[in-house]
Amino acid sequence: MFGFNAGQSSTEQSLEKRFDGKLDARDLRGWLQQMSSAPNHVGSPHNRKNAEFLLEQFRKWGWDSTIETFYIWYPQPVRQLLEMTAPHRYTARLHEPRVTGDRTSGEATRTALPPFGAYGADGDVTGTLVYGNYGMPADYAELDRRGISVKGSIVLSRYGEDWRGIKARLAYEHGAIGCIVYSDPHEDGYFRGDVYPTGGWRPANGVQRGSFLDTSIYPGDPLTPGEGATEQAKRLSPDQAITIAKIPVLPISYADATPLLAALQGPVAPLGWQGAVPVTYHLGPGPAKVHLIVHLDWKLTPIYDVIARIQGAVAADEWVIRGNHHDGWVFGALDPLAGTAALMEEAKAIGALVKSGWRPRRTLIYASWDAEEPGWIGSTEWAEAHAEELKRHAVLYVNSDINARGFLVAGGSHSLQHFVNEVASGIRDPETGTSVQERLRAQLRVDELRNNPAADPNAAPKTVPAAGDLPIAALGSGTDFTAFLDHLGIATLDLYYAGEDDNEGIWHSIYDSFDNYVRFGDPTFEYGIAEAQTVGHVVLRMANAPVLPLRLADFANTVKGYLSELHRLADVKRRHALNVSTLIDTHAFALAADPQRPVTAPKRETEVPELDFLPLDNAVDHLQRTARDYDAAFTHFAAEGFAIDDARLAQLNALLGTLEQALTDSRGLPGRQWFRHLIYAPGMNTGYAVKTLPGVREAIEAGRWAEANEYLAITAQAILKYCDQADQATQQLYR
Amino acid sequence: MFGFNAGQSSTEQSLEKRFDGKLDARDLRGWLQQMSSAPNHVGSPHNRKNAEFLLEQFRKWGWDSTIETFYIWYPQPVRQLLEMTAPHRYTARLHEPRVTGDRTSGEATRTALPPFGAYGADGDVTGTLVYGNYGMPADYAELDRRGISVKGSIVLSRYGEDWRGIKARLAYEHGAIGCIVYSDPHEDGYFRGDVYPTGGWRPANGVQRGSFLDTSIYPGDPLTPGEGATEQAKRLSPDQAITIAKIPVLPISYADATPLLAALQGPVAPLGWQGAVPVTYHLGPGPAKVHLIVHLDWKLTPIYDVIARIQGAVAADEWVIRGNHHDGWVFGALDPLAGTAALMEEAKAIGALVKSGWRPRRTLIYASWDAEEPGWIGSTEWAEAHAEELKRHAVLYVNSDINARGFLVAGGSHSLQHFVNEVASGIRDPETGTSVQERLRAQLRVDELRNNPAADPNAAPKTVPAAGDLPIAALGSGTDFTAFLDHLGIATLDLYYAGEDDNEGIWHSIYDSFDNYVRFGDPTFEYGIAEAQTVGHVVLRMANAPVLPLRLADFANTVKGYLSELHRLADVKRRHALNVSTLIDTHAFALAADPQRPVTAPKRETEVPELDFLPLDNAVDHLQRTARDYDAAFTHFAAEGFAIDDARLAQLNALLGTLEQALTDSRGLPGRQWFRHLIYAPGMNTGYAVKTLPGVREAIEAGRWAEANEYLAITAQAILKYCDQADQATQQLYR
Repeated sequence: MFGFNAGQSSTEQSLEKRFDGKLDARDLRGWLQQMSSAPNHVGSPHNRKNAEFLLEQFRKWGWDSTIETFYIWYPQPVRQLLEMTAPHRYTARLHEPRVTGDRTSGEATRTALPPFGAYGADGDVTGTLVYGNYGMPADYAELDRRGISVKGSIVLSRYGEDWRGIKARLAYEHGAIGCIVYSDPHEDGYFRGDVYPTGGWRPANGVQRGSFLDTSIYPGDPLTPGEGATEQAKRLSPDQAITIAKIPVLPISYADATPLLAALQGPVAPLGWQGAVPVTYHLGPGPAKVHLIVHLDWKLTPIYDVIARIQGAVAADEWVIRGNHHDGWVFGALDPLAGTAALMEEAKAIGALVKSGWRPRRTLIYASWDAEEPGWIGSTEWAEAHAEELKRHAVLYVNSDINARGFLVAGGSHSLQHFVNEVASGIRDPETGTSVQERLRAQLRVDELRNNPAADPNAAPKTVPAAGDLPIAALGSGTDFTAFLDHLGIATLDLYYAGEDDNEGIWHSIYDSFDNYVRFGDPTFEYGIAEAQTVGHVVLRMANAPVLPLRLADFANTVKGYLSELHRLADVKRRHALNVSTLIDTHAFALAADPQRPVTAPKRETEVPELDFLPLDNAVDHLQRTARDYDAAFTHFAAEGFAIDDARLAQLNALLGTLEQALTDSRGLPGRQWFRHLIYAPGMNTGYAVKTLPGVREAIEAGRWAEANEYLAITAQAILKYCDQADQATQQLYR
Repeated sequence: MFGFNAGQSSTEQSLEKRFDGKLDARDLRGWLQQMSSAPNHVGSPHNRKNAEFLLEQFRKWGWDSTIETFYIWYPQPVRQLLEMTAPHRYTARLHEPRVTGDRTSGEATRTALPPFGAYGADGDVTGTLVYGNYGMPADYAELDRRGISVKGSIVLSRYGEDWRGIKARLAYEHGAIGCIVYSDPHEDGYFRGDVYPTGGWRPANGVQRGSFLDTSIYPGDPLTPGEGATEQAKRLSPDQAITIAKIPVLPISYADATPLLAALQGPVAPLGWQGAVPVTYHLGPGPAKVHLIVHLDWKLTPIYDVIARIQGAVAADEWVIRGNHHDGWVFGALDPLAGTAALMEEAKAIGALVKSGWRPRRTLIYASWDAEEPGWIGSTEWAEAHAEELKRHAVLYVNSDINARGFLVAGGSHSLQHFVNEVASGIRDPETGTSVQERLRAQLRVDELRNNPAADPNAAPKTVPAAGDLPIAALGSGTDFTAFLDHLGIATLDLYYAGEDDNEGIWHSIYDSFDNYVRFGDPTFEYGIAEAQTVGHVVLRMANAPVLPLRLADFANTVKGYLSELHRLADVKRRHALNVSTLIDTHAFALAADPQRPVTAPKRETEVPELDFLPLDNAVDHLQRTARDYDAAFTHFAAEGFAIDDARLAQLNALLGTLEQALTDSRGLPGRQWFRHLIYAPGMNTGYAVKTLPGVREAIEAGRWAEANEYLAITAQAILKYCDQADQATQQLYR
């Protein structure tokens, strides 16, 4: 077992076996049903009740538990109106009706949060409508080529590709006065599968609620960036909070979007813009004109993070932290209570182990966050409030959120790749009986064959090894790990099961219910148990390993891969800019355009200069050598049975536990200082999806060449800092 | 000018200028309106009237003209019924209603051919319904992996990917008792653009009529393969005609398909199978059950090819042939009368030149074919009836069919690539004023940038040169060039304009009307004039060039490219078979499958042996040397002003004019002896789309290794025969 000697391994294995023996799917079912029985959004009574229930359970299981309350600036919906006033009148229903067989959907009308966009602006606006596809920068460029401006208009965009808060920001930046976002059945409805309640996909009137906070700038409470939103915290005034949208926003269903799409005229939308509503999509502007009213009630709202702790027996100041949020948008069965139930089951089993006399070597902290939905606020405020102690003590943060039937999804810090793989190789997949690692490998290999049927040796290199460790994903954002990884630089994992659940379509709607989950999510709760096992083993093994089980070569080789991507990216951009210029100079765009569907040439791109890659190339080479040396020393040390006293172990683990922090820089990323990790960040214009080596990558993507060079150097410095600290750890191992 | 000396060039240029001066868009408009004023399908009175009108016009213009009549085995629809009997009753309308602003659509009910499938079987069948996507071999494999058989069932497939006759053959081969084919709005309806009459795309009730003849075996009259269907021809009995479908077939609209799709249950269709009808597509079988009646009246039906001739002044036994069909499915404005009108305009202008005293060096034959729609029958029967003289005399066949606003589409024998490019560089694009060659280049380069935005040097090699000749496409089938190129080995070109017409969606429906064409096809008829100019210049230049203007390197290099593809194909298949086996052996497919959506592993593929490429590799190397030598000799000869007497020219041109025939082999392609060309053929399972080096390529694709080796040798022999003949021509040039 990686990080353990033979005797320790066998002890740890029998501990994990005892842990497994305490897991019971019936618990998960009971908790899920109870906690999802009423709406549990931020500020709702049932959400508070769930927090108190969690507190009570943790205490019952023997954890030292508390609720930490933060006060966040938060809007509750008062009134939403969307009506089309031309070319004919249509008033959007903005309502999700009850459906047969879904018991809570009948109660929702009374108590549920209506569909709304958190952190949109208040407003009463009327404007012509423009269809903006996903509302991404490339989409605005295409509108521009067709002579269509959204200035003074209301943009209708579909969900997909990015975080909805970015759609609102970009709409505002392009001059729009309102932003409507709908779920197109092409991505999220009958085009994908049977809709609820026949199947799990989004029904015509289902709405994806959600936050429009611009979390790529900073997540968490908009008034207290970088600081815990305690009662006495210093606050910005709301108009200083740049993460709140500047225009009113509203998420709607495809039933409500259909009359709007049907009423648009103007150019036919480009082929990739057509969705599955059975009309031909047009760009507008107009003749559809819409009137949008959003009236919100803003106030400081208390949120409740439940924090439970078991003190470490040997290394109490090394913390293994595990979290999942408990607030939902309505009933929140899949999101987040399926994950919460697994976390609870872990805590119950660990509590029982402690009661039987066992104590972890390190301190365990289990957290049930509030207010994840509006912008992972509960976790962010707690992480900010405890930043200094976390930077000293935290050695790992393990996150989950939704969980359902399917395949292991594993992302995180790449120095943990081998550790996670080892855990995954020991978890039995409920449906097939093989390990979840082997089942994931099978899926990846079958996908690889499907996506690259040619198996062309000139195509992308094979990424799925036939044996051994599988790659883990780099983390972007969209859930509670963000502050830990991106702001504080704590080694992080995000682990869950998904891919066979057929209920993505009820996400953030009233139909994310217990009745739905037990049909389409994880009917037997076996994947809830698999999740509790997986994360439980990660937590226990990380808590007990004498030396923190990092394999630095996995990180070094992954970063080397990212760096190669950047070299390619710069080359490709250079050629692309040249090609665009050539085609502009030869009038090719004008000649190729249909005069009856005018489209101008794309904008000329700035020439790509040669970038100063040298510092980063050298740093990454250095990193690969450092990693090789450290891993060799670790292997040597393991062969000697980790013969070392606790004091030296503490010194070694202090170096390893804070190693990830070397990758941060207090200057942060360009335009978003809160994001300090120089290897992983959510994209400024993606929100969920990661950009690796983000300072450099986003500068190259946007053509900001001085900034690219600046971040090539800054990132190199961070990697060299990481090397220094790792080299010290190597020396400790040989001492 | 390629193939002319300086003096001849200037004469030819002024001739072409005079030709251009005689072209008048008003002619095209008038003829189109008159000829599309009534249904003109095979056997209809108006189609015969159009043939007689054409004959009269040709004669008026001074052409030596005749109608050649053939007698083909042909079905007329008597009764079609499609009703769903379970889970509820729905009777398909099978009717295209009148639409506002389309005058002929109002008359169609009385006189038009109802939607039907020509050369389907008679039948009265009832069976459960299965959705079969495009009905291609890969689709049946996917059904099979999901445990779904079509045996005893009726298959509902959507149009696309292949020729509809192949859908019928494959449905039958898999045991289906009936085959319904519909136009999905995803490919052909509102998903692509506004539907008629707002835009040009297929409206809900529009039906794509069409032939289900298995033209990949042999096209033309099913009773007289390889022989002209003259009155006295020896005929097969109808049950010997393997090209006639064995099961009843019916093409229907998406309005009629929607209730069927909505009634299917069983597994949800794989993601790529979902179309744009707003329901979730299921595979079945059933519970939808359908009853299909097709009652046809089969008889020998006369068809009327109009053949017009102008005797060559110098080389009367060298024939330049130009054709377009005149039969449509209903009014046929776009298909084929837009092309017919351009052909007529050429004939009119050439006639005027002849009247003014000019005579072509070679003989011109203009043909207006009947019965193209049911399987390019008029052209095939004529080519078969005149096979021997065509093989002796024909130096070029130039085809067209539909024609509309847009870009030049040029395909054909690659030895003509430079010749066609030179002509295209001299034709002015009506919309932009540049040459049609430069406009096409602009389109291709913009597409290339869009499809390969990375401009990655490791991606596919650039195919669009920044200057010089553009590649022409290899020809598959689907129209009247087939017998000339694929059966007789006559050098062929297919030339038309398309790409900006927005009326593909009315294809083969009653809405392919004059009113539609002048809104969405080519409102000013300028592209009809461009077509007449393009083909006219090809015909005149080919008729007058002292030496037939072939550039053999274009052919040799293109074949070299095809051969490289085959090497890659074999390698890729080898790796793919290995990968599939590995994944089967490691149970990856079983592990990756969702137990709630069972899907078995794909079939194990046979291991790919090393193939004997050597003969073909050597032959193609030889071809490249031969081509280089010939082209050098030609250049040398041109520099000397083509100083040669007519007798020697005749010897040289006899070699060049029959050169393409060296690429044929009387053994034909495997399983389809009629197809003799070893470089170009329609795919056995594509119908329209070309397979180059077909004997080898299709054997490799299907895993018939002995056959692949056999055709590697046969194809090599043909290429060496070509080389011998080309070498003789080279010697003639140097003599």
